[in-house]
Amino acid sequence: MIKTPYLLFLGDAPDQLAAKVAQGVKDWRPEFAIGQFRMEGCNADMGPPDMGLQEAIAAGCKTLVIGVANRGGVISPAWKKVLVQALEEGLDIASGLHNLLRDEADLVAVAEACGRELHDVRIPSVKYPIANGVKRTGKRCLAVGTDCSVGKMYTALSMEREMHARGLNATFRATGQTGILITGDGVPLDAVIADFMAGSIEYLTPDNDADHWDLIEGQGSLFHVSYSGVTMALIHGGQPDALILCHEPTRAHMRGLPGYKLPSLKALNDLALELAKVANPACHVVGISVNTQHMAEDEARTYLASLEREFRLPATDPFRFGAGKLVDALVQGDQYALAG
Amino acid sequence: MIKTPYLLFLGDAPDQLAAKVAQGVKDWRPEFAIGQFRMEGCNADMGPPDMGLQEAIAAGCKTLVIGVANRGGVISPAWKKVLVQALEEGLDIASGLHNLLRDEADLVAVAEACGRELHDVRIPSVKYPIANGVKRTGKRCLAVGTDCSVGKMYTALSMEREMHARGLNATFRATGQTGILITGDGVPLDAVIADFMAGSIEYLTPDNDADHWDLIEGQGSLFHVSYSGVTMALIHGGQPDALILCHEPTRAHMRGLPGYKLPSLKALNDLALELAKVANPACHVVGISVNTQHMAEDEARTYLASLEREFRLPATDPFRFGAGKLVDALVQGDQYALAG
Repeated sequence: MIKTPYLLFLGDAPDQLAAKVAQGVKDWRPEFAIGQFRMEGCNADMGPPDMGLQEAIAAGCKTLVIGVANRGGVISPAWKKVLVQALEEGLDIASGLHNLLRDEADLVAVAEACGRELHDVRIPSVKYPIANGVKRTGKRCLAVGTDCSVGKMYTALSMEREMHARGLNATFRATGQTGILITGDGVPLDAVIADFMAGSIEYLTPDNDADHWDLIEGQGSLFHVSYSGVTMALIHGGQPDALILCHEPTRAHMRGLPGYKLPSLKALNDLALELAKVANPACHVVGISVNTQHMAEDEARTYLASLEREFRLPATDPFRFGAGKLVDALVQGDQYALAG
Repeated sequence: MIKTPYLLFLGDAPDQLAAKVAQGVKDWRPEFAIGQFRMEGCNADMGPPDMGLQEAIAAGCKTLVIGVANRGGVISPAWKKVLVQALEEGLDIASGLHNLLRDEADLVAVAEACGRELHDVRIPSVKYPIANGVKRTGKRCLAVGTDCSVGKMYTALSMEREMHARGLNATFRATGQTGILITGDGVPLDAVIADFMAGSIEYLTPDNDADHWDLIEGQGSLFHVSYSGVTMALIHGGQPDALILCHEPTRAHMRGLPGYKLPSLKALNDLALELAKVANPACHVVGISVNTQHMAEDEARTYLASLEREFRLPATDPFRFGAGKLVDALVQGDQYALAG
């Protein structure tokens, strides 16, 4: 687990988009985003006060989070100077960069000398078990998508926020690097060794209170041939009680696979539910989350209404219209019946 | 790739069963099994002549294959002496043991000094790509099972043998450590990192002659919650043209999962075919391979006949009755229709 709160390191981010990770922390765990550290040439601004390293430590920061994608795949000398100083001053460092902190000899040496931790969230830090399939207490909800990158993380995070606002017992469970950096914990599932994938999700979502919901971040898609095995492990390791179907209706083809068309939401519903029932016969689909960013508002509302009629399930875009409908469906445990 | 032929190292194997890997080489690649090396206390005998290290090298052996499961998870000092000598004399070493050759400092040092290779087949030696899903030339057949360990490797190897006997163009593609040691090449799929699973199978089964069949070794089961993600990656990375359904009808529950019943062959047929069609819409199920070892012969024949009536597919136990029926179905490309 990464110690919180954070100092968000924006480096020399050329624009706001390059600081996607920092933006995620600011949006979803604002209480972790105590300060930001910006270097010369930085054009991003996440909002929290600019702080020097000592100032951040005085404010209670425990970890410097690299909140920006670097250019060219190397940690620049300019960054390096700040990172070494941060370790010396008393901060751990967490990063989701492709090039690992642990491969930088100077960072490793300083971290060891100063007793600090380097967190490379792309790489598992736990020896996960092989899944045993035993039914766990508490409840679990998993977002599954017709494709990759259709809003599964956003859906789960927005449901968690809505549930907390209602005083409900729920935890977002991160399965990718951005989610791990946002929340300080999780499983980097795409980097887990094949035999331990489902076991890592069992580990991530252990026995819990009877009224507790794990909101598990989805990955990949059952219909995406590059990553479908990862999705399968989430379904069987997560043994969800509830599925949320996620979709982006304007895609011409599967992400990164020009030869592959998207499946229908009906196909996703049927396949995901059949597979989920292997691990949990009581599983049901509770709602549909649509990323409508490429649709006009009236077009989006019309489309969502048509899905609700077709599937007899609540359908919304949680970014545009809130996650309330999805949470209603989850907590009411309504037994929607799928229309033929 | 592991250099062949082999000297089969049986060590101090207490019985024939402990030398399963050596038995596999002897059964399926007898031309690789030039000699065996037995130590004091060895109660296994694979049949090829006993040879010393120099004798084996003179006979053309290139690699000493550890053909026995060791006790207690460590390479014993008695073994170590032989292994070091083998490297010095001129043999590579290949092993599927849990404890890795590469973690034995003395073996690593001698191998480097002598220019020999250490093959730990449990660990990938290749940086596999992410799957791109592009259709490849040549044809592929994949064995899928209702459960783990129902005879998928045996089915594929026996089909390869039958196809070679008929002069057909076919290659068994190993996806597990035993298969890799038997054939000298393959992908240790259970040890591949999640994101690269499907890509590793694309790598294993590249473009080939139009009349060539890859016979891909199956792993796990879509219905086995511990390993289903691995099976999924095989189906989507392998983009099979043909599926063989594998089953062991006397199992009380899924292997290692007391709470999980086996699915029906019909359920396997429908699910595997639906998933395979995502990557290859032309895929069809060509036959059923049943492990009937716990049934009397007449009982087995009656059961197989009932499956043939139910599924309108050839059904056999390749160990007991040969793989001829499965190969007939594969090469005739018969379009069997599944009875409702």
